[in-house]
Amino acid sequence: MVMDAQPALVALDWGSSRLRAWLMAGPDAVIDERSSAAGASTLNGAAAFENALDALVGDWARAHPRLPWLACGMVGSAHGWREAPYLHCPVALGALHRQTVTVAWGGAHALRIVPGVADTAPGRAPDVMRGEETQLLGLLALQPALAAGCRVLMPGTHSKWVQIDAGRIVALRTRMTGEVFALLKQHSVLGRLMQPSDGFAADAFDHGVRSGLDSGGNDLLHQLFSVRTRALFGQWPPAALADLLSGLLIGSELAAGLAEAPQLPLALVGEPPLCQRYRRALLAAGQAVAASHDNTAAAGLWHLLAPELH
Amino acid sequence: MVMDAQPALVALDWGSSRLRAWLMAGPDAVIDERSSAAGASTLNGAAAFENALDALVGDWARAHPRLPWLACGMVGSAHGWREAPYLHCPVALGALHRQTVTVAWGGAHALRIVPGVADTAPGRAPDVMRGEETQLLGLLALQPALAAGCRVLMPGTHSKWVQIDAGRIVALRTRMTGEVFALLKQHSVLGRLMQPSDGFAADAFDHGVRSGLDSGGNDLLHQLFSVRTRALFGQWPPAALADLLSGLLIGSELAAGLAEAPQLPLALVGEPPLCQRYRRALLAAGQAVAASHDNTAAAGLWHLLAPELH
Repeated sequence: MVMDAQPALVALDWGSSRLRAWLMAGPDAVIDERSSAAGASTLNGAAAFENALDALVGDWARAHPRLPWLACGMVGSAHGWREAPYLHCPVALGALHRQTVTVAWGGAHALRIVPGVADTAPGRAPDVMRGEETQLLGLLALQPALAAGCRVLMPGTHSKWVQIDAGRIVALRTRMTGEVFALLKQHSVLGRLMQPSDGFAADAFDHGVRSGLDSGGNDLLHQLFSVRTRALFGQWPPAALADLLSGLLIGSELAAGLAEAPQLPLALVGEPPLCQRYRRALLAAGQAVAASHDNTAAAGLWHLLAPELH
Repeated sequence: MVMDAQPALVALDWGSSRLRAWLMAGPDAVIDERSSAAGASTLNGAAAFENALDALVGDWARAHPRLPWLACGMVGSAHGWREAPYLHCPVALGALHRQTVTVAWGGAHALRIVPGVADTAPGRAPDVMRGEETQLLGLLALQPALAAGCRVLMPGTHSKWVQIDAGRIVALRTRMTGEVFALLKQHSVLGRLMQPSDGFAADAFDHGVRSGLDSGGNDLLHQLFSVRTRALFGQWPPAALADLLSGLLIGSELAAGLAEAPQLPLALVGEPPLCQRYRRALLAAGQAVAASHDNTAAAGLWHLLAPELH
């Protein structure tokens, strides 16, 4: 953190389950940061959003009344504070700052909200993201060489696989890997066999990844049952089963995802422990990782407004 | 039901979640039937199993003290009343009656338990079933022509796909279609968009089936997200989403399952409403249904002991 720099932006990553806020003086200069559990899915109506923002960082607004405020994420969904309608692929990341919507709050302040991105190419189901477009802008600011063309894998509850071409988002696929893992672990017949583990069961994870890759991403409904039967036949102990399932799901995700645009370099953006898991699986799949970054939302929000800030 | 015939067998289908009992005088002659929620997964220890059985049909034992008792299902698992170790494919259905294990109960009675079946062919994960082997015996008693060679699809929480050759179970695949559907409907981001419906949303189901079939059973983690995005873009109303998801999962299951041994006729065994759903999906896949039956466990238990009863 930078203590005596001049604040220039309040940046918000306001997702479904969390609100994260940064008081920024520059692209790498965070003066203060805070977060709360006031995610967009927990709030209903404009007043609730306004109160949540004021509760977390109202003092920033009062101390620095002339700052720009910028948010990305589910805060801009149809059930958020103010809808920022989806932009449709191809979406030029350098033009996002001209496509925000603005909501007034706290009497004197204006919060600009970044729109999400939809891929509505014909012949398949639509796909969408909110917040990740801003992280992509942050990634390309940190790794300018990737702007020419790359794939970005953003693992999580809903993994996003994004294709970039000439600074534009051209294609988008969501895979529900994290959510399906959590559901099966918490609520399924597979989870009932699992025992908690202190460590990472690397061998079981690797075995799962290999099974998922070998399946080609096919017949997952059958593959999943192998977590149960391998336990029944004593092939893996109960404490290794969660990592076996994690590997199987990630391997299955990679088998399908890596088949798309394989000629492009691949970058990873997400929480470091999860990215580590994916790096290991990507290595097993023979896929090099061109870059790996933690959440790049703050950098993305800064660079989104940079054309106006400078 | 047959009221004045002579009882010859007490047959039990004792699965994870339910205990069903039939007092039988012949293969089609059920004198009485009862069921309770005392499934094997709700009971712990021999005394609990014995008490549950006595509570449901202890009067049958006292009224007819010399009858044979026969059970199939999870009652014979390692966590059941008495373990009946798996038989390994190929398993001759005509020899099952020589492979039961016996547990004494109520002082004077002996309950024989049918073993489950495991497919432990090398090069893939093991697969298992308990109870379905007995339903298969019932099916082949009702449809003798299928014994030469067929595929049997038994849809449910865990769909079983079984290959029969010359009266033997030669291969077995489980697909967790029903459980994954229930989890996603009850606990996932997809379920949160769903609204209950009085009727069957046939168009949405058919659309889901077609999507699943077209995917070839591939990339299910991505396909699932389409249920959300098609709702977001107004392509299907909230009341149709459960059937859209159901169709997608069944279509994905069929795409993978029907690729195996496609030259063999296919029979369906299961609850009529679910079989109706599968018949519709199989029709869309161009797959004829050679026979369709409700749960055939009672017939199977009768025919399993028939070599000894006659």
